[in-house]
Amino acid sequence: MAVETKVRKFLNDPALVVKESLAGLAAAHPDLLRYDAQQQIVVRKGAPKPGKVALVSGGGSGHEPLHGGFVGLGMLDAACPGEVFTSPVPDQMLAATKAVDGGAGVIHIVKNYTGDVLNFKMAAEEAADAGIKVEAVVIDDDVAVQDSLYTAGRRGVGATVLAEKIAGAAAERGDALAQVTGFVKRVNERSRSFGVALSSCIPPASGKAIFDLPEGQIELGIGIHGEPGRRRTTLGSASEVVDVMVEAVLSDLKLSRGAKVLVFLNGMGGTPLLELYLLYGEADRKLRAAGVEPVRNLVGSYITSLEMAGASLTVLELDDEMTGLWDAPVHTPALRWRA
Amino acid sequence: MAVETKVRKFLNDPALVVKESLAGLAAAHPDLLRYDAQQQIVVRKGAPKPGKVALVSGGGSGHEPLHGGFVGLGMLDAACPGEVFTSPVPDQMLAATKAVDGGAGVIHIVKNYTGDVLNFKMAAEEAADAGIKVEAVVIDDDVAVQDSLYTAGRRGVGATVLAEKIAGAAAERGDALAQVTGFVKRVNERSRSFGVALSSCIPPASGKAIFDLPEGQIELGIGIHGEPGRRRTTLGSASEVVDVMVEAVLSDLKLSRGAKVLVFLNGMGGTPLLELYLLYGEADRKLRAAGVEPVRNLVGSYITSLEMAGASLTVLELDDEMTGLWDAPVHTPALRWRA
Repeated sequence: MAVETKVRKFLNDPALVVKESLAGLAAAHPDLLRYDAQQQIVVRKGAPKPGKVALVSGGGSGHEPLHGGFVGLGMLDAACPGEVFTSPVPDQMLAATKAVDGGAGVIHIVKNYTGDVLNFKMAAEEAADAGIKVEAVVIDDDVAVQDSLYTAGRRGVGATVLAEKIAGAAAERGDALAQVTGFVKRVNERSRSFGVALSSCIPPASGKAIFDLPEGQIELGIGIHGEPGRRRTTLGSASEVVDVMVEAVLSDLKLSRGAKVLVFLNGMGGTPLLELYLLYGEADRKLRAAGVEPVRNLVGSYITSLEMAGASLTVLELDDEMTGLWDAPVHTPALRWRA
Repeated sequence: MAVETKVRKFLNDPALVVKESLAGLAAAHPDLLRYDAQQQIVVRKGAPKPGKVALVSGGGSGHEPLHGGFVGLGMLDAACPGEVFTSPVPDQMLAATKAVDGGAGVIHIVKNYTGDVLNFKMAAEEAADAGIKVEAVVIDDDVAVQDSLYTAGRRGVGATVLAEKIAGAAAERGDALAQVTGFVKRVNERSRSFGVALSSCIPPASGKAIFDLPEGQIELGIGIHGEPGRRRTTLGSASEVVDVMVEAVLSDLKLSRGAKVLVFLNGMGGTPLLELYLLYGEADRKLRAAGVEPVRNLVGSYITSLEMAGASLTVLELDDEMTGLWDAPVHTPALRWRA
């Protein structure tokens, strides 16, 4: 073979990995979305839909299926993927906003990373100048650290997926801009997350691990770009790891006894489903022991950090309205069901 | 933390990883299935269904979501998970067969590994003695090698997922035993697969890699337990890797020009979705260039080898009947849609 790759990755030119992956996503799902290579945005098929509130999200790539894999019926209208672990630029966000605006307003769902927040802000201002009503909600559900490598305040992680699903269903049924925005905020306010890692990921461009974590060690409170967490310690049993995750989330979320929750047990990319279900079993049991009731769940790798071995726990306190919207039909590459 | 784990895995007792993972699967999906811990089988909720042909599959664990994640409406009625990379025992298979027999017969979908084939054969004989009509179909779609570490003849890999979906839909709509069995055979006959790996997996019990593959190398024709493939070479570009996969599959499947195919681009567990979609884009383009038409696809990690970095390509030549059954409703932990 002529071109040699030194890292354990399937790549052509590392500089083109995002573009080529998005082209593959579009080739696999032409019934759901299209890829605008010029603007580097993923747009729902048939958008804009007149009178429908549109949802746009985006951020650095490397977290797939987030966000491109959530474009489709009942979730996002467009996604703006930046390069790996790099914020998209305002032009992408503006192009996505214009591509999906159906006159009822556009919501930007923004994970709290400094670059994303600034760029979405600029895009929202330009969109407003162009006469588009834009609301932005910043997601900051990660209880691990107050400030971080790329963030002032809390980081936005797993709640993003839940907000996209629940608010997406509200937009799909025809809710107005203020109502749909309210659901994004409500999901963020009622969610908390905590992640752990057993290994670093390796960005394609550098081919180098972001941090070194010796075998037998665990990073508690990791971010989705390999940002440091609360502390590093000796890896204990799965039960002990879940104790830490559940305690971190519940001590911050402050649920009333008997609260109904959605439990999102997420893989960071390199952890087998065998282990994720083992972790889910532990989390389900410990949450029930703590007096809350898991009534919905999502288990799998939905907001990842390339091939990082690790997992995160997100708990969302549900109400009847959010539960109904969670159950509502969705048809995207990564989430698909009908009620 | 009291218990220390030396490998990069979420585990309690390594000897209990399969049991604890299955308990977690059942806790997450009580609406779909139940876990019989005594027999170590996963059984569809409401089974047996009188008059419905039942589908049973199974094999070593470590390939999740295969098979437990495919139990539910429109796919499997039961799964028998062995320990990691170890065949289930005949008693599990017999218990599963009895648990789902609704009087219309039971089909065993058996991946071609020597232990699985022998044990399913014993279970089928015992089930027949108990008055249950059993048909067994051995899946052997892997073109990589003729004989292998655990196999006489070809190995059974990706076609298993497709057979479970398509035959499962036929059983769901009420087809008789001979017809449903015919669909399993048809999918197997019209499918070919080829896998590659960039790293070994690490079974939980040993905590050791099965083989050593230096960075910058690729194993072509890998099996799902780390069995050796055709050859090891320098890792080239993604495009070159897909050339090898497509050539291996098409030279064996012998499609007529314009054939409609389902393309299954599968991750081995440790390869990010970012890369899988890049590979899908390459495969889609190269297959079209070779004169065949991808009309359905499945992209993701559905038959895995723990955290192995790698991918496999399965191509199934569709006809209208198989296409309709692929599109039919399915509701399992890992595959879920309605037509």
